[in-house]
Amino acid sequence: MAGRRRKFWGWGFEDQQPPQAEVERTGLAAREQLGFGPAEVERPPRLEELDLPGPRVEAPAALAEICATDPYERALHTYGRAYRDVVRAFRGHFDNPPDVVARPRDEHELEGVLEWCAEAGLAAIPFGGGTSVVGGVEARVSQGAAVSVDMKAMSRVLEVDRESQAARIQAGATGPELERGLKEHGLTLRHYPQSFEFSTLGGWIATRAGGHFATLHTHIDDFVESVRAITPTGAWESRRLPGSGAGPSPDRMLIGSEGILGVITEAWVRVQGAPAHKESAAVLFDSFSDGAGAVRALAQTRLFPTNCRLLDPGEATLTASAPAGTALLVLGFEGSGEVGAAMAQALELCRAAGGRPRERRGDSEGAWREAFLSAPYLRDTLIAVGVLAETFESAITWERFDGFVDAVRGATENALGGEGRVTCRLTHVYPDGAAPYFTVLAPARRGEELDQWEQVKTAASEAIIAAGGSITHHHGVGRDHRRWYDRQRPDPFAAALRAAKAAVDPNGILNPGVLIDP
Amino acid sequence: MAGRRRKFWGWGFEDQQPPQAEVERTGLAAREQLGFGPAEVERPPRLEELDLPGPRVEAPAALAEICATDPYERALHTYGRAYRDVVRAFRGHFDNPPDVVARPRDEHELEGVLEWCAEAGLAAIPFGGGTSVVGGVEARVSQGAAVSVDMKAMSRVLEVDRESQAARIQAGATGPELERGLKEHGLTLRHYPQSFEFSTLGGWIATRAGGHFATLHTHIDDFVESVRAITPTGAWESRRLPGSGAGPSPDRMLIGSEGILGVITEAWVRVQGAPAHKESAAVLFDSFSDGAGAVRALAQTRLFPTNCRLLDPGEATLTASAPAGTALLVLGFEGSGEVGAAMAQALELCRAAGGRPRERRGDSEGAWREAFLSAPYLRDTLIAVGVLAETFESAITWERFDGFVDAVRGATENALGGEGRVTCRLTHVYPDGAAPYFTVLAPARRGEELDQWEQVKTAASEAIIAAGGSITHHHGVGRDHRRWYDRQRPDPFAAALRAAKAAVDPNGILNPGVLIDP
Repeated sequence: MAGRRRKFWGWGFEDQQPPQAEVERTGLAAREQLGFGPAEVERPPRLEELDLPGPRVEAPAALAEICATDPYERALHTYGRAYRDVVRAFRGHFDNPPDVVARPRDEHELEGVLEWCAEAGLAAIPFGGGTSVVGGVEARVSQGAAVSVDMKAMSRVLEVDRESQAARIQAGATGPELERGLKEHGLTLRHYPQSFEFSTLGGWIATRAGGHFATLHTHIDDFVESVRAITPTGAWESRRLPGSGAGPSPDRMLIGSEGILGVITEAWVRVQGAPAHKESAAVLFDSFSDGAGAVRALAQTRLFPTNCRLLDPGEATLTASAPAGTALLVLGFEGSGEVGAAMAQALELCRAAGGRPRERRGDSEGAWREAFLSAPYLRDTLIAVGVLAETFESAITWERFDGFVDAVRGATENALGGEGRVTCRLTHVYPDGAAPYFTVLAPARRGEELDQWEQVKTAASEAIIAAGGSITHHHGVGRDHRRWYDRQRPDPFAAALRAAKAAVDPNGILNPGVLIDP
Repeated sequence: MAGRRRKFWGWGFEDQQPPQAEVERTGLAAREQLGFGPAEVERPPRLEELDLPGPRVEAPAALAEICATDPYERALHTYGRAYRDVVRAFRGHFDNPPDVVARPRDEHELEGVLEWCAEAGLAAIPFGGGTSVVGGVEARVSQGAAVSVDMKAMSRVLEVDRESQAARIQAGATGPELERGLKEHGLTLRHYPQSFEFSTLGGWIATRAGGHFATLHTHIDDFVESVRAITPTGAWESRRLPGSGAGPSPDRMLIGSEGILGVITEAWVRVQGAPAHKESAAVLFDSFSDGAGAVRALAQTRLFPTNCRLLDPGEATLTASAPAGTALLVLGFEGSGEVGAAMAQALELCRAAGGRPRERRGDSEGAWREAFLSAPYLRDTLIAVGVLAETFESAITWERFDGFVDAVRGATENALGGEGRVTCRLTHVYPDGAAPYFTVLAPARRGEELDQWEQVKTAASEAIIAAGGSITHHHGVGRDHRRWYDRQRPDPFAAALRAAKAAVDPNGILNPGVLIDP
């Protein structure tokens, strides 16, 4: 794959960008399907058109070999992949590129990079796949200059323990890389965030990424057996333990720390054999609320479906060709043991809640996953044809569920001014609540996309916080969610986290502005 | 129950202490069964014999109503309930009693107590059921004087959310108190540590207590939806969320904090209906290692038994009348849905691993729980007849399991000098490992019990740490495990925790010496 480069402005590899004629065809067809009418089609930027400010610092000689300052690398590392990131990149706006991109190949080189940053007063921004949708890797920092610390050169499966079903994997391994390494041993992690192809184990752990499993193992948190990170004051490594009660979990403090405490270099994660048994089904409901009632019953009966995605009628019609006006539950069970009995019980509960099981249609999970992983590619095309495409997610307990979804949807629709659509699905479910995931599709106000996005994002986020939800279930906090996160997290916890950071990162170099201010 | 008092020196209520003749009969019979021969039988201490140092401080007038300084209260709050605690208390040695016992009835009074402690430079030691077995509530502090902050006056179930199956419960509620409150609503927490009768929700959360469930919900951690604590710098309260990915979990930082960051006052916990379906079985194995192999297969097949206790031959013979030389697996499944299929699969896996299912014999879970909860009562009797009775637990991944158990058992037996017995059972199991729980029973060296205990404890703990285990799976760290915990936890994490504590407890009043030093 040497030489295969990722698009510096959008999703995927450069060779995956469709020809402009296809962008036009697909994009305009999508606009029509969404009822948005025709629009001018824009072309993506070209690297040679970019006018990046020059790097303000130069890497020391000892690090020169692993540091890059060319426009491609700096542009690629400027943003995550949120809607507003792609819009800015699409328009060629790269205002705060990192000055240097460093690619340590081992912990020793990583330590060298952090030492340099500490001495020179530079921000060090850990970078995995660069797929943040919350401004987690963007160099909006108070320091003069910033180094993007790209972990992709540390991407190996280092050790596999078949007996304990666990593997030690470097933080820079992407989803496909680590699954390839595990497959040689007949094992799999089965953690599939939408960014799976490009995001990394370290990024997942740093941001508490949500994956494949709708229940039990909803976040990467649940797969972590131990973590190792390099902090500016030394290595932070926990023991490999299947469970522990020795003080507050050191792992849980790193998990979700979004690069402010240390750079995760490797982790032991719990893996498993490929599931020998799978069952899937689809169930129609008259309303999202009815479907949610069934999902609640499933979760509270502790049936633990692997897949339990409930699409509201808008989303079901658009993405899964369900009959108009019906909600659709995509249900799956998998395991090394039999799962037929669990599926039978689940369908029973669905029927009792008014659900109508649909006839089986092939590998619905495989089809779902393919569509799921291709969505970010489509978004690049939607942006070219002037469609605002934003997603956000939260979590809420069941007793507030219906009101929460209505309030958030209403506030978001209101911010759109009657144009566009807001749909909702459940991605992860719990005995005590669920994680609603919202998708916004609207005609973009060309040239004013960032203001328009800001209005929508603000309205949605205000509604989420006011109604008691979490500003994020699995997208992370980064810089973009700070305003609302600051109202969500307990003040003494923020004080504790700030002090903890100062203790391990005394110069405040690590991802400044994310989660907390100094 | 007004007027019913707990024994100040041992387990249970005063009216539960058997007559001395019965202590003699039961105790000497136990000695004989253990092969230890006859011994002198000692009498427990009487309150009026105690010679406590006088309190060094007086509560301010505003707190006088909730503060006590009488010998009974101070003696009751001097120790936890470890073997060495009961031995010291039994002998009437109360060297470091708290100066004052405060019983706040609400958060306002609690804040008053903490303010007083901060102003007067007193240690404030949160006290739930006082059942710590790791020196977690003992006033071995650098401050001149100490206040035991007993949370028992805050013991109500405040709110029940049937729709989300969650309840808001005050930290001082004991197991029976909270189960009684939940039962009115047809709900149950089903968290049964061995200290269930006396320990409290707040204590469980502060120490990451292990409970009833052998899989999935092994620790109280897994039931916590949100926590509220009072720190010296304000209230630390998380939102009620079924799941979240917003930064490092604020709850996970309080869970296991053992009173050093704040005093937990209440929590929302996930509850459920009483299980409608239960299955239990017992399976014999030729060896502990064979049984562990079966347990590993069960756990890795993700069957999630509720009960999965594997007793080694020594323990099986002694406590469950299994044939000599065989290990015994006590297996249980429960749920609101059917569990028969899971049990059938589990027995299949056991047979494949060489297990021989025993005929069913009534409610083995109920019998087990009764015996389990009565063990601490028996220990008081064993101490009277000169039996050293100590337990400790750890966790280890499967690939090191057999060697770990052998090493820890061997080191402990060695420290006993060939007298007594060390048995092992598995209490909680995971796909990647298990939690071995060791019981030591040996003839006590009368008058030198503490030295003897120290030798055994040191040998066992050194072996645990050297072999890669955790110094505790669910007993906590407290003051007694500090030496080994300090070698287990990552140094940068300790620095972070120390700084976090200083930020929320700037005067260092909360449970000093536990987990970290200032």
